[in-house]
Amino acid sequence: MSTTRELFNVRTPPDALQALLGALPRSSASEVVATADALDRVVAQDISAPGELPTFRRSTMDGFAVRATDTFGATEGLPAYLEVSGEVFMGHAPEASLATAQCARIATGGMLPDGADAVVMVEQTQQVGPTTIEVLRAVAAGENVVQPGEDVHLGDPILSRGHRLRAQDLGGLMALGITSVPVSPRLRVAIISGGDELVSPDSEPGPGQIRDINSYTLSALIRRDGHEPCLAGVLPDEFEALQVAAQRALAESDLVILSAGSSVSTRDMTAQVVDSLGQPGVLIHGVSLKPGKPTILGVCSGKPVFGLPGNPVSCMVTYDLFVAPTLAHLSGATAVPRRTVTARLSRNIASATGREDYVQVRLEQGEDGGLEAIPVFGKSNLIFTLIRADGMLKVPLDVGGLTAGASVEVVLF
Amino acid sequence: MSTTRELFNVRTPPDALQALLGALPRSSASEVVATADALDRVVAQDISAPGELPTFRRSTMDGFAVRATDTFGATEGLPAYLEVSGEVFMGHAPEASLATAQCARIATGGMLPDGADAVVMVEQTQQVGPTTIEVLRAVAAGENVVQPGEDVHLGDPILSRGHRLRAQDLGGLMALGITSVPVSPRLRVAIISGGDELVSPDSEPGPGQIRDINSYTLSALIRRDGHEPCLAGVLPDEFEALQVAAQRALAESDLVILSAGSSVSTRDMTAQVVDSLGQPGVLIHGVSLKPGKPTILGVCSGKPVFGLPGNPVSCMVTYDLFVAPTLAHLSGATAVPRRTVTARLSRNIASATGREDYVQVRLEQGEDGGLEAIPVFGKSNLIFTLIRADGMLKVPLDVGGLTAGASVEVVLF
Repeated sequence: MSTTRELFNVRTPPDALQALLGALPRSSASEVVATADALDRVVAQDISAPGELPTFRRSTMDGFAVRATDTFGATEGLPAYLEVSGEVFMGHAPEASLATAQCARIATGGMLPDGADAVVMVEQTQQVGPTTIEVLRAVAAGENVVQPGEDVHLGDPILSRGHRLRAQDLGGLMALGITSVPVSPRLRVAIISGGDELVSPDSEPGPGQIRDINSYTLSALIRRDGHEPCLAGVLPDEFEALQVAAQRALAESDLVILSAGSSVSTRDMTAQVVDSLGQPGVLIHGVSLKPGKPTILGVCSGKPVFGLPGNPVSCMVTYDLFVAPTLAHLSGATAVPRRTVTARLSRNIASATGREDYVQVRLEQGEDGGLEAIPVFGKSNLIFTLIRADGMLKVPLDVGGLTAGASVEVVLF
Repeated sequence: MSTTRELFNVRTPPDALQALLGALPRSSASEVVATADALDRVVAQDISAPGELPTFRRSTMDGFAVRATDTFGATEGLPAYLEVSGEVFMGHAPEASLATAQCARIATGGMLPDGADAVVMVEQTQQVGPTTIEVLRAVAAGENVVQPGEDVHLGDPILSRGHRLRAQDLGGLMALGITSVPVSPRLRVAIISGGDELVSPDSEPGPGQIRDINSYTLSALIRRDGHEPCLAGVLPDEFEALQVAAQRALAESDLVILSAGSSVSTRDMTAQVVDSLGQPGVLIHGVSLKPGKPTILGVCSGKPVFGLPGNPVSCMVTYDLFVAPTLAHLSGATAVPRRTVTARLSRNIASATGREDYVQVRLEQGEDGGLEAIPVFGKSNLIFTLIRADGMLKVPLDVGGLTAGASVEVVLF
């Protein structure tokens, strides 16, 4: 009975996430960091170009800066003759402007002299005297030249608030002389592991005990996402101890994760702790998801608080589905697509309609050279299925399963 | 003439890379780091399990530990009656073993008492007296139980040399009490930017000058790949200055990148510098690739030295094609698939057969909900085409182009 009731009362993963995010403010906090150190940081305000690029007319070829009209009609049979009046040195303004029938030697990236409006590639010329060349092909005005502002104009929007900075974005900022940049502060995420059976990884577990691992897996995921994990330690399954730790964590952090056990009593205790921390408390208790159904999503005094299931597979799945997007939301980041590959499913997978299933898969090169996704089955409280797997695939809410041979998108992890 | 000759003499990108890697030793250096800090590090030696997991028989459900034979034949109409002889507390060995027709209350993750060999879910029982339950469904031996070693056996290989550690791998190591791990040292990569036209990003460029950006783009890419960039600074296009800087960089680093200008004379000077640093010197000068044709790959005194083209797009493409795999090779890392998405090409792209082309694309949601890849064209010495793009697609060596509507794999950057 209880199972049936839960199955129909729980929310779908997208609904659950929306209910949580809708109850959370976006922070407008920002801090300024050196552009050189800003890889993967999230831009905190729209940035527009403080100048134009390039700032001068640049040659895109090695050759000769010319007046295009002087080359009109030039062919191999009937070349145009030009006087080489000088050379443009890299990093310097040309010494003189071009008069009619003059040209100047120029390298890729060099600045066009006044009077010049195009560049003839060196391969399309022939030196015929100490200061005379033949031009074997006509060029149009602007040919082989980048114009001022052609790359970016003054005032062009270049990066939007919420954009996660990539290597080339840092280069673009530097090109414009923007050597520091406003970014969203890294968020502080507290992790509390609860369980009478848990011991620290450097201890030898006694009978009935296991080592805490979710603290470390979650820490690594939080770092991967650009934020700061803070381990509040392993606590026993006691309401008061958990509540005290969670209260402190809530005061000191931007987001709190309670990684609880998988028994009904510890899940209920987690919900009570979340409810005790502040209004509105638990928003969602149970999601139509496998693994990860007993997930708790709450908001306490304006901050998100999560109760994630204790088993390692559920813990990772629910982090990615709920915590990662919440961190992105809080820091104003636009969503980043996860690393995925397309593969062919090796066998049928059954699933209940009305539930999102996440299935761990190994990837292997198939006989035809394509990738094959091979489900790695195992009870969801095993750890090493996660290590043997290369990624997960989603069986959507509205399908009853997937058939062998189907093309599937695997999220790598 | 010169263009034609180069086109037929240059190597394909895979050939060029193979020639370079074949001339380089794999390092066997390793260092030990705390597992908690080892995210994204590369495992330096094969690791096998120092123990088994789980170490005891664990329940996967909330319910009652039973002797399966005591439940045989049980149905809702004809339940089995069992005496509740006690309760298993989390993190403790059960106090007593089960006698015939006894059971013990147990939570998910609890340790089975001696005598018990299965767990009945609480939903399939009914409390009928202070110490008596009805079992409404028979269970088989082993049902709802994880056996010792079921997750991992003593001596099982768990992580191979060359594997890049993910969040769940750290969890798996911690579960086995492996709190420190041998990894490949981060490699030190020197970057030398050469060009008379270059000034530092915090300077105001004069006429004909531009700000150095490749130093910063390359630094970010090297950090992304888990290594340590070291900026040797901006140098003029003078053989001696470049040679002195490159010699020092080679002595102090594991890999040297010379980011040179795009003119023929600076490319030739870069090749001379590489040749002057040690045997064998330049291995490859020119690759059938666009952009990135003037790439120089060399080995000097056992270390790789790269001459990357100065224009920003070529610089990024050639880093990813040549430097990134060389760093992986040197640190013994197995290749990591790049983050890719499948999209539909929005228009025809022409390309020369016998050359790999990399085309920058923007991604947009198409009318049918699928992703559309829209080429972002622009002279390859523009910077902001890289920023307006979401990724690149490859036009393979042996095709003359791609047609609109083709399904293409876009490498995100």
